[in-house]
Amino acid sequence: MSLSATAIDGLPEVREGDDLAALLAASAEFAAGDVLVVAHKVVSKAEGRVRDLATVEPGERARDLAGEHGKDARLVQVVLDESAELLRAHHGVLICLTRHGFVCANAGVDRSNAPGDDHVVLLPADPDASARALRAALPGRPAVVVADSFGRAWRVGQTDVAIGAAGLAPLDDWRGKRDSRGRELEATEIAVADAVAGAADLARVKDGGTPAVLVRGLERFVTEDDGPGAAALRRPPELDLFR
Amino acid sequence: MSLSATAIDGLPEVREGDDLAALLAASAEFAAGDVLVVAHKVVSKAEGRVRDLATVEPGERARDLAGEHGKDARLVQVVLDESAELLRAHHGVLICLTRHGFVCANAGVDRSNAPGDDHVVLLPADPDASARALRAALPGRPAVVVADSFGRAWRVGQTDVAIGAAGLAPLDDWRGKRDSRGRELEATEIAVADAVAGAADLARVKDGGTPAVLVRGLERFVTEDDGPGAAALRRPPELDLFR
Repeated sequence: MSLSATAIDGLPEVREGDDLAALLAASAEFAAGDVLVVAHKVVSKAEGRVRDLATVEPGERARDLAGEHGKDARLVQVVLDESAELLRAHHGVLICLTRHGFVCANAGVDRSNAPGDDHVVLLPADPDASARALRAALPGRPAVVVADSFGRAWRVGQTDVAIGAAGLAPLDDWRGKRDSRGRELEATEIAVADAVAGAADLARVKDGGTPAVLVRGLERFVTEDDGPGAAALRRPPELDLFR
Repeated sequence: MSLSATAIDGLPEVREGDDLAALLAASAEFAAGDVLVVAHKVVSKAEGRVRDLATVEPGERARDLAGEHGKDARLVQVVLDESAELLRAHHGVLICLTRHGFVCANAGVDRSNAPGDDHVVLLPADPDASARALRAALPGRPAVVVADSFGRAWRVGQTDVAIGAAGLAPLDDWRGKRDSRGRELEATEIAVADAVAGAADLARVKDGGTPAVLVRGLERFVTEDDGPGAAALRRPPELDLFR
């Protein structure tokens, strides 16, 4: 068994209103069984999920947090706007529960690779819907993963994870399956979509020039219907021992 | 840019005392610049990091926990033996800080793919040392990652991560680097070794038959010296907001 991940070259800078599917289709060929991994940044930009900090009026809580943590109060206001809950604020790091239910730094709000100097890029409003729309519009109808780099509890560094998915089984459920000796496996559910996002990230550089990666060899996880998406990877709060 | 991950077929069942490097070398060819990812299970078995539950006498704490959580008291005793601290015990799940400093369920102690019905496999005593020894003994001297499947806070499912590494930069440090517009990147450090472990896991099945995967295309992360290993991926407790 083997897989490959290849960066898609030649994509232009993506702007609000751009037809991302058309830009991707002009740069690569896709087939059913392929998995296309796209950095959320270009999806968000095409969808206009960008805010100009010059237009943001920070409220009192944002100003307080910004003062405590040495941050731009307008940026903090945008982070709070995108958050359902601020889980931790420590040493300048704001760990948020986003309105979608993701736990990540700054609710995914990011200044790098933004279209203007005072602009910040948000996560897509509904990344699974973004993935589904991209899949439906792409010739060859590959599975689509929308990825972002998230930090982790307990471990240093970030890894790319799936924040949106369509046509890919997000989890490979081994519960109840057996090892080669017939013993039940303790590995339970493998977060396939997250592993795919991480693999794709290894095939590109992070300067914004290669936001899309084509992964082949995962036909066994590609589904005809769009499936549950990356929503299935968000751990429900009541089943999470660490928040 | 592209990478490939290919499972190594034909490895026999690994037993205590086996020369794992020789078994791997008989099944695949390696070159400098390659990354070999090995499931810890076979490393642990070769190293004799296996316990027979029939020989374990559970203490009082193990018996109490086992009673509360419906678990085998002898297994719980082994988990406690491998743990520096029990972080959470909830609904039958024991989340442990291992003696190495990893946070994972059951301190990595696992019954599946064990050599005997009453046996459990432990993590290697020093997985970075295991990776270094394997690298030194392999023709072609590929980088080596020793992987295990860990659950995560906030997200459903497990992903493979690096618990040992030699000859691979565990982190790709982008701090201070710039995006294509010259703006500082907010992505800080990419956990390369964890992403490689996850990618490799996508190229194999979990029934124990393909514990080794060869990853190519990551020459830029492969180092001449063995480097800091996966120890660099363990977040120091004082920098961890979630334990």
